[in-house]
Amino acid sequence: MAKEGAGMTEETEYMIDRHVGKDADCSADSPHDAKEMRAVILSGFGGLNKLRVSRKPMPEPQEGEVKIRVKACGLNFLDLMVRQGTIENPPKPPLVPGFECSGIVESVGENTKGFEIGDRVMAFVNYNAWAEVVCTPAEFVHKMPDRMTFAEAAAFALNFVTAYMMLFEVANLREGMSVLVHSAGGGVGQAVAQLCSTVPNVTVFGVASCFKHAAIRDSVTHLFDRNADYIQEVKRISPEGVDVLLDSLCGENTGKGLSLLKPLGTYILYGASNMVTGETKSFFSFAKSWWQVEKVNPIKLYEENKVIAGFSLLNLLFKQGRCGLVRSVMDKLLCLYDQKKIKPVVDSLWALEEVKDAMQRIHDRGNIGKLILDVEKSPTPLMASDSTETSEAGEEEEEPEGDNDSKERMPFIH
Amino acid sequence: MAKEGAGMTEETEYMIDRHVGKDADCSADSPHDAKEMRAVILSGFGGLNKLRVSRKPMPEPQEGEVKIRVKACGLNFLDLMVRQGTIENPPKPPLVPGFECSGIVESVGENTKGFEIGDRVMAFVNYNAWAEVVCTPAEFVHKMPDRMTFAEAAAFALNFVTAYMMLFEVANLREGMSVLVHSAGGGVGQAVAQLCSTVPNVTVFGVASCFKHAAIRDSVTHLFDRNADYIQEVKRISPEGVDVLLDSLCGENTGKGLSLLKPLGTYILYGASNMVTGETKSFFSFAKSWWQVEKVNPIKLYEENKVIAGFSLLNLLFKQGRCGLVRSVMDKLLCLYDQKKIKPVVDSLWALEEVKDAMQRIHDRGNIGKLILDVEKSPTPLMASDSTETSEAGEEEEEPEGDNDSKERMPFIH
Repeated sequence: MAKEGAGMTEETEYMIDRHVGKDADCSADSPHDAKEMRAVILSGFGGLNKLRVSRKPMPEPQEGEVKIRVKACGLNFLDLMVRQGTIENPPKPPLVPGFECSGIVESVGENTKGFEIGDRVMAFVNYNAWAEVVCTPAEFVHKMPDRMTFAEAAAFALNFVTAYMMLFEVANLREGMSVLVHSAGGGVGQAVAQLCSTVPNVTVFGVASCFKHAAIRDSVTHLFDRNADYIQEVKRISPEGVDVLLDSLCGENTGKGLSLLKPLGTYILYGASNMVTGETKSFFSFAKSWWQVEKVNPIKLYEENKVIAGFSLLNLLFKQGRCGLVRSVMDKLLCLYDQKKIKPVVDSLWALEEVKDAMQRIHDRGNIGKLILDVEKSPTPLMASDSTETSEAGEEEEEPEGDNDSKERMPFIH
Repeated sequence: MAKEGAGMTEETEYMIDRHVGKDADCSADSPHDAKEMRAVILSGFGGLNKLRVSRKPMPEPQEGEVKIRVKACGLNFLDLMVRQGTIENPPKPPLVPGFECSGIVESVGENTKGFEIGDRVMAFVNYNAWAEVVCTPAEFVHKMPDRMTFAEAAAFALNFVTAYMMLFEVANLREGMSVLVHSAGGGVGQAVAQLCSTVPNVTVFGVASCFKHAAIRDSVTHLFDRNADYIQEVKRISPEGVDVLLDSLCGENTGKGLSLLKPLGTYILYGASNMVTGETKSFFSFAKSWWQVEKVNPIKLYEENKVIAGFSLLNLLFKQGRCGLVRSVMDKLLCLYDQKKIKPVVDSLWALEEVKDAMQRIHDRGNIGKLILDVEKSPTPLMASDSTETSEAGEEEEEPEGDNDSKERMPFIH
């Protein structure tokens, strides 16, 4: 049973016992009337030890907002960067991480149009998704198809909208083109592969760790080992290169990527996961990675007829106000889902209390598809696939930082 | 009467008297059987004094080539950069400049398909266009519509294919978008304005010198003085910026341009005319301009959701072998021409012997639309418009180079 500290604030989180989740569900006759909720808290930037599950005051919807009883949350590579503080202008911790969730509308604020209590929804959230309850403006909320599960919905929005907008809004993918995608086994990678299959005669080159190949071989045309010289392999198959290159790694790969483009080809950077190397990250090593990113001379683009783009869906939504455009994209995606042309791939489900294990798995690039935090799940691993290897852990760089707790690599619950 | 030098080679050009053109036409009973032809020769990189009209051996078509009796040639800003040697890997002079022409098929090489003697054609040429006769592979040759004049045809291919591919292949222009084009009064600028008008509800922001405004005001939605703070003016009208920005200037304007883009907007660099400052250009000042071009950090593109592209039609054709794609674009453009939705704007016609005056006019940015070398014209200026001001000449930087002949600014024919 959870101990309730008098005068608890966001700053006074405490570890919750492994049985708290279940106990809380059982002990409250009407959990929806509770004054508090469970949430994952990041107490400061750094390693896994900065994460705790804690109680927070129940949020209430403001004008134009929807209050969602969360069923499932998406875990993205970006969440690791948030934890390490390696994003642009991170908010001040403590904070509740998480950018997307699915659930049921519990109430709506004043002047909130389009949603009713009981609606099954998926939502983009500007932090705070990893909690039992979330409030977010209605323009970031989308109704779920009837046959979509909450886990699927939490795996859908960010990855498929990102993949769709890169392929069709930025790169103008058309019949007969070719696409190379890094991290082909990840959530966006699998969404890209499925969306490419909706266009006739598109060749997909996927790059992924060897141990994922068996699981994802059917989703792409050609599959390469990320540790092999895939540049040469692609050029052997397609000497002119590819029309679209989707890169979530950044760093030293920018130049390589541009060299792989056909004339009029488009390189899209949509993440910077190479900036996350070890468990924690000193400011110095972050700054070093940032400035080491190869800059592009526009005149080189002119001579080679090439296009380079960046894509960040979260910035598009939360900084640049493109909710209307995203809604129109979501409508198209839900049509494709209804036609059974696309379907989110869920790697595994984790309880909130297992967030460290889940993060370690995405850090080790062990996942195939999306990692989901299942808010109602008790802390016992339930794998959607049996691929539990973390064969890349050995590649990680040594962590010289003193604040790195080696115990972080241990499972969260002993 | 032209003097014929014994054993004349490409290296022994001489100035041709102003009446040579006419005399040559009159003196030859059958000029098509001549062993020589007139051509503009660039004897070395530098100022206008490096240009001469001279005789060269008559070219004959090789396998797959078309021999064209040239009627008109297009003069582009790029030709100034060729003259100054400020392009990447310029060929060794002496050379005949010119990348496009129109004319009549005089013969075809072995295995040349699709063209017959007498066909009216327009052609892309990898140098050598500014001559009475040109041979070029058939894949670079396109048939002209019946009602198109030779001057229009020489003004059509490079500018309209460039404009179309930038707007629709690279930037994916759609209804309701906005486009900003520098050099709105130039050949590409006028083609961009016309093509934008074929898409519903597209806003065109044009930047041009003030003295051109009266002539081009109707072709764009908003017109700004290139010497004014057009950035602020555009932001006042459209605080979010523009969807597409077309820049033929390069240099310091790259950063400015990116700052004017909406999220998901596309900046396209299609020229580098700011690199041409004075009449001649030392290697040092060229290198300085080149390296001063602002490089772009891909992570900035990621954060801002922006796209930067380069476009060079000549590289696409002659280095990257995209003739098939260009032909499909040309087919679409000729449909639009037939429907009278587009029509090339010709600034003025010049005899080959007047090439220096023509170059000075484009250097001074005095033109509205395209400058044409009319091969059959005798050297008397015939202006398509009465706009002969060169008000920007005063802006040019001082020329410290010793090889700069001040007489070059004088008209070619005294």
